[in-house]
Amino acid sequence: MPLRYTLQAECPETGARAGTIETDHGTIETPIFMPVGTAGSVKALSPRALTEDIGAQIILGNTYHLHLRPGREVLHELGGLHKFMSWDGPILTDSGGFQVFSLAELRKMSEEGVRFRNHLDGAYLHFTPENVIDTQRDIGSDIMMVLDECPPATVDIATARKSNELTVRWAKRAFEHYHNTTPHYGHHQALFPIVQGAVYPEVRRESADALLQLDAEGYAIGGLSVGETADVMYEIVEVVNEVLPHDRPRYLMGVGTPQNLIENVARGVDMFDCVMPTRNGRNGSLFTTEGLVNIKNKRWERSPEAIDPGLDLYASQNFSKAYLRHLIKSNEPLAMELASMQNVGFYLWLMREMRAAILEGRFPAFRAEWSERVAQKV
Amino acid sequence: MPLRYTLQAECPETGARAGTIETDHGTIETPIFMPVGTAGSVKALSPRALTEDIGAQIILGNTYHLHLRPGREVLHELGGLHKFMSWDGPILTDSGGFQVFSLAELRKMSEEGVRFRNHLDGAYLHFTPENVIDTQRDIGSDIMMVLDECPPATVDIATARKSNELTVRWAKRAFEHYHNTTPHYGHHQALFPIVQGAVYPEVRRESADALLQLDAEGYAIGGLSVGETADVMYEIVEVVNEVLPHDRPRYLMGVGTPQNLIENVARGVDMFDCVMPTRNGRNGSLFTTEGLVNIKNKRWERSPEAIDPGLDLYASQNFSKAYLRHLIKSNEPLAMELASMQNVGFYLWLMREMRAAILEGRFPAFRAEWSERVAQKV
Ligand SMILES: [Zn+2]
Ligand SMILES: [Zn+2]
Repeated sequence: MPLRYTLQAECPETGARAGTIETDHGTIETPIFMPVGTAGSVKALSPRALTEDIGAQIILGNTYHLHLRPGREVLHELGGLHKFMSWDGPILTDSGGFQVFSLAELRKMSEEGVRFRNHLDGAYLHFTPENVIDTQRDIGSDIMMVLDECPPATVDIATARKSNELTVRWAKRAFEHYHNTTPHYGHHQALFPIVQGAVYPEVRRESADALLQLDAEGYAIGGLSVGETADVMYEIVEVVNEVLPHDRPRYLMGVGTPQNLIENVARGVDMFDCVMPTRNGRNGSLFTTEGLVNIKNKRWERSPEAIDPGLDLYASQNFSKAYLRHLIKSNEPLAMELASMQNVGFYLWLMREMRAAILEGRFPAFRAEWSERVAQKV
Repeated sequence: MPLRYTLQAECPETGARAGTIETDHGTIETPIFMPVGTAGSVKALSPRALTEDIGAQIILGNTYHLHLRPGREVLHELGGLHKFMSWDGPILTDSGGFQVFSLAELRKMSEEGVRFRNHLDGAYLHFTPENVIDTQRDIGSDIMMVLDECPPATVDIATARKSNELTVRWAKRAFEHYHNTTPHYGHHQALFPIVQGAVYPEVRRESADALLQLDAEGYAIGGLSVGETADVMYEIVEVVNEVLPHDRPRYLMGVGTPQNLIENVARGVDMFDCVMPTRNGRNGSLFTTEGLVNIKNKRWERSPEAIDPGLDLYASQNFSKAYLRHLIKSNEPLAMELASMQNVGFYLWLMREMRAAILEGRFPAFRAEWSERVAQKV
């Protein structure tokens, strides 16, 4: 069945909204955070932990990484990513564009697509709007993304406009190819275009307007959280969300801190993904209901305090700060599991709390209470 | 309460025996394998996974590693290792002797003890029969081990005898200190002496005879699986178990492969520990009910087969060989969790199967069926 977005409640004071997205792999309650499963695995979290411990409803896979390993053929032969990684819920995949622009080498752009050497074995690859759809068909994600160009935050307006025009032409080609191909595994796959335009409201509006003509099942906002200030990010999100249709989900790509999530939910964003909770967890930076905890700090050496007394998770409740500090300092693999469960679990908890606040008409109070709190250092 | 060993059944044809060991942290059903939790964590397995997934009943901690990190003071302040790592079952700790002889540098032996530079920061440490008891009191393990000297397998008989005599004198000092000290956390701590004597039956007998006078709650066999052949190991275990008392548990330290476990259970061993299941798992060597699987092998690249169709574990049943291969090749931390669950889970399954076979009078048939099978490459 097609992707169906249902708007359930809107905050009367802010742009915050609660809804559901129905997919063939289940219903997602929005606003939602999507844990990042780069190469078919969310760092140190089994599918069981994702579902039973932290309540993940949808995860993200990276087309670039999955294309390199295990590769399209293996994924196709084994029935797609859901079966491969034993995850039965919805999956969203990016197009690989962002990784091409951040990881790959000797990148060469053309109207046709982008040619580059991959970061693993240096072999040349060519990504086009069409072939990244083919790859995502092999992956079998419930939500696919179009290939876009991701210019740096510092680009001038003329370059931003030129780049966005290419992204829009690519999006049109992607949708044409999308409509001429079919899913491989029997379930529906949606395709989201990506609004670009760097930090220029005018270009962002042009981008969103042009993409509206595709009548997509959802829209993404890309090219943010790449070096601009938070205020600029918030302004751009506001500008774009004024143009995007009310009855489709809005996905802000690669964002961000817990405070970024709260402030962007306040501006009408429904979906987020970010590597921050897993990447920071690896380095001992914890997101907790008390604020930001650097668990490597000497002050936690003898702390019997639970990792996060305010969060009802196995990792948060059953282990002391001293123990997690010890595990990280000793390079014990369990450290990664506990830190990921805490951090990704905290992100999902925060989204559930926001959703409940929106549904109950108390989102402004929630935002006032938590927006600063989640950013303070403990 | 004191440690209580109850012999439940003996195999009429072999030396295999089934029993229970009661401790203040619960009852252990023997024969048993103890997963190794070097520095307060069994590699990539949470206490919950140890209990609920693989049915671990007792785990092992390394005094040497725990002494270095987090250190005695932290452990004491936080109420001992059980609380620190959130493991409520029995814990056995070694004395640190083996690590001093395998990891430490500039080792200097004396009658008093052993002086060495630790492998982490190079600081000098001095382990004595007395102070390793003190450390284990701070750890709070249910079963402590005496400090012993661990000579290489290639030592001549005169050196082996001299070394064992030192180990026996140290054991006597350890027991004297043990009787003059008390547990720190309210639960009983047993102390096991260690039979040494390298590959010389005569010296092994002398060692066991001397240690019997300590009237210990259990006895360990050390210095095996250090380079001698399996046949020599089996012979020495037979010799020692003829001397050791029937009514006390027997612990064979640091052994070994699944076949070693079967063959030593057949010779009357009750307890085992080994890093092999976790260490091999990290390298993609799996112990399965089908035999040894090298999951990195290209032949598994597209295999939809479950990791171990014959083992009823979350990891074994829910993921394909192709997926685990992909995770290991991609350095995904989930690989370690799945491989540890499979390998340590297999070891514990094997022990439960042997125990059931002994209790039901069919151990010889089990041994005949499995002893070769667990060693064959798939
Ligand atoms: Zn396909
Ligand atoms: Zn103490």
